[in-house]
Amino acid sequence: MHRHLPDVLQAVDDGMAQSIERLSDWLRIPSISALTAHADDCQSAAHWLATAARDTGFDADVRQTTGLPIVVGRAHKDGAPRAIFYGHYDVQPVDPIDEWLSPPFEPSIREIEPNRLALFARGVSDDKGQVMTFIEACRAWKAITGSLPLDVTIVIEGEEEVGSPSLAPFLDAHRGELEADFVLICDTDMASRDVPAITTSLRGLIHDELTLTCARCDLHSGVYGNAARNPLHVLSAIIAAIHDETGAITIPGFYDGMQADVNGDVSIDAALELTAENFLHPVGLTIPAGEHGYSLLSQTTERPSLDINGLWGGYCGEGAKTVIPSQAHAKVSMRLVPGQNPSAVQAAFRAFVRARLPADCSVRFAETRRGTAALALQGDTPLIKAVKQALADEWGNDAVLLASGGSIPAASSFAELGMPVVMTGFSLTDDGQHSPNEKFDLQSFHRGIRSWVRVLAALA
Amino acid sequence: MHRHLPDVLQAVDDGMAQSIERLSDWLRIPSISALTAHADDCQSAAHWLATAARDTGFDADVRQTTGLPIVVGRAHKDGAPRAIFYGHYDVQPVDPIDEWLSPPFEPSIREIEPNRLALFARGVSDDKGQVMTFIEACRAWKAITGSLPLDVTIVIEGEEEVGSPSLAPFLDAHRGELEADFVLICDTDMASRDVPAITTSLRGLIHDELTLTCARCDLHSGVYGNAARNPLHVLSAIIAAIHDETGAITIPGFYDGMQADVNGDVSIDAALELTAENFLHPVGLTIPAGEHGYSLLSQTTERPSLDINGLWGGYCGEGAKTVIPSQAHAKVSMRLVPGQNPSAVQAAFRAFVRARLPADCSVRFAETRRGTAALALQGDTPLIKAVKQALADEWGNDAVLLASGGSIPAASSFAELGMPVVMTGFSLTDDGQHSPNEKFDLQSFHRGIRSWVRVLAALA
Repeated sequence: MHRHLPDVLQAVDDGMAQSIERLSDWLRIPSISALTAHADDCQSAAHWLATAARDTGFDADVRQTTGLPIVVGRAHKDGAPRAIFYGHYDVQPVDPIDEWLSPPFEPSIREIEPNRLALFARGVSDDKGQVMTFIEACRAWKAITGSLPLDVTIVIEGEEEVGSPSLAPFLDAHRGELEADFVLICDTDMASRDVPAITTSLRGLIHDELTLTCARCDLHSGVYGNAARNPLHVLSAIIAAIHDETGAITIPGFYDGMQADVNGDVSIDAALELTAENFLHPVGLTIPAGEHGYSLLSQTTERPSLDINGLWGGYCGEGAKTVIPSQAHAKVSMRLVPGQNPSAVQAAFRAFVRARLPADCSVRFAETRRGTAALALQGDTPLIKAVKQALADEWGNDAVLLASGGSIPAASSFAELGMPVVMTGFSLTDDGQHSPNEKFDLQSFHRGIRSWVRVLAALA
Repeated sequence: MHRHLPDVLQAVDDGMAQSIERLSDWLRIPSISALTAHADDCQSAAHWLATAARDTGFDADVRQTTGLPIVVGRAHKDGAPRAIFYGHYDVQPVDPIDEWLSPPFEPSIREIEPNRLALFARGVSDDKGQVMTFIEACRAWKAITGSLPLDVTIVIEGEEEVGSPSLAPFLDAHRGELEADFVLICDTDMASRDVPAITTSLRGLIHDELTLTCARCDLHSGVYGNAARNPLHVLSAIIAAIHDETGAITIPGFYDGMQADVNGDVSIDAALELTAENFLHPVGLTIPAGEHGYSLLSQTTERPSLDINGLWGGYCGEGAKTVIPSQAHAKVSMRLVPGQNPSAVQAAFRAFVRARLPADCSVRFAETRRGTAALALQGDTPLIKAVKQALADEWGNDAVLLASGGSIPAASSFAELGMPVVMTGFSLTDDGQHSPNEKFDLQSFHRGIRSWVRVLAALA
């Protein structure tokens, strides 16, 4: 054991109130990357973090990109292994705002069950709270020993929630500076409240957005009803055709190239098996809606998915308006698994839509960002084993390897540059990431900091 | 010919500038009945009209209802036939606001083709401009002769655009006061720019609004994608099932009770036949989208229709959000023809939706207003013949009888009380009622006023 480890852990325990204060401060900045109206807030959140990193011994600054800035900071240590730590300061939009029990950018601590406190705010678990588990761990090391056990470079970006368009070009352009022996990423879940996890596979992600246009202006249904093509009907028919009655996706070519057994390195603990009872029931559902013949775990991690994330057109206000709208709109995202080619899948989706357009209906696709391919990592490397042991030391339970259904474009980018990646995180499945009332268990925050203290020692 | 007719017509011509000024004044009040935020504006618009009516010799006041007020005014004339004139002061919402070339509540006169001027504003043709053709005709009669040729009661309501929920109860409660020999309604189109028309059939109308709920909160598609039911997919599948590939509506019971030959009294002038070229092309369409085997005129007036007027759910803002929403929403309206029972059709629609709900998906219907049945009037009564002649005298073309695809709940209400109804109006099919850039041809306004001057004389 590192000789200073007990003192550093004690410093974490003693400083928890201030750690929560600092995190709350950051959470008050509404750094929503999807909304250009919040571009200044994103700058503020980046500068806030650069300042916090400098307080913690990093030589940190805010690097502008063609999109939102990336915070880069290095705490140099001669002769020590070089680590990159990745996280993101941007957060999801807050709607539906009416469903928040406390304002999303006014952090609030509430008891969610007896003796269990959580901090509620947009971005608290995705990903500001998780980034701060690492920063606060570094702060404790610096306070007790004057430095970190490793040579650490932090890379905290502001576009994770919109597909990380600037990150890969930035990493390419700064290859020398951003070389490392391994990359630590904190943007994933635990297996359960007391069982830590290392995520070894991620689904890929592509977005698209489409607008159908029929008539050149909105029409009165009393005049044109029956005679004019209604784009809301056309769009509904296209969406309805995407899935068949078994839940499979009917887009020709969608499943092309898929590899079998993508979770090969993940030993599924029986206790981790997802069931309708433990996975769907907490959100008010009872029946898996995905492809027949696949377990819930397989549906959500090994199988690709397609969801309409937003759909709108016509009159959506109060009361009624008898309009046949000119346009209908949809936002769609697809989660991919290893072997699927993002560009090919996007092209297949667009061809599927175009093939279903009736006369007098045209489509425009708005999305131009490149997608992210899925990622599958080895689970038995010495690096992973060391992190597993550090997590087990903190939590008293073995860390399990998890397949995630989510996507972290940065993980793919770092892996493509040949750097070993370790993904561990402390959020819980029910933390409401991307939903109203996002929370972060205070135990996750506290023991997450302690976990990083141990991981830094273990990898030194 | 009434001996004062030439002088009254001359007074109309001489007063056009002031008539346009007065109408513009009224148009500046954004009396949108669908939006409760505009309730005060609706009150203002009612009071504006009551004042204008008093200036014109009516004993007028604003009557409150459980909804928006109704303006009632009488210009008594001993021994003369009693007429009711009906119109509405409420207007449609203005979205999509970006498509307006001038602000919807700042009336603007523009040349739409050489030597053809139109006034642009929300409500200018539906229905404030049309109401003012009648009020200004009365003003001219009053100015020249000191009174009107008939005993006239005006009934101008403020809820036509939301289904006239308060009107039928109001007419019931004021039967004695609102007895009349006939009812004149000015809320319909001409056959073409120079061909006046009397509308003898209207489609009925029912609205509904539904919300589907799956999970109890929005979910992250990276965690739940494939496993959680997406209400946007469910709603799309339901909407897609409403029409079959021939354009027919598949809802069991939807067509029950329909009468054949509803336009029996309407002699369709060949020049009035709707074609893709004259009806669809101006709005950017080329192919009739309705039921196969029916003409465009039949599709839009003799056949019932169902349109989704609004559809929304999930993330509809800028950028992307990988959410599986908890809810999806749709607004729907159905145009009915004679024989269809509004309540039965609404029940059939709701049963159709409920029958298609998968597990874990519930529906709530929001609409509680009763629908309006379709209306078909005799076209060969002495009353209609007299109005036809007055219109022909003004326009130099015979007035044709039109079947309309639109709905005027008031017409059904008056007809149910046993009063003969005459519907004539001066708007044009392409006036953009319910759409951006609503307009009213200044010729329609001017000769509309002159038409009412003649009709009042003809019916005296």
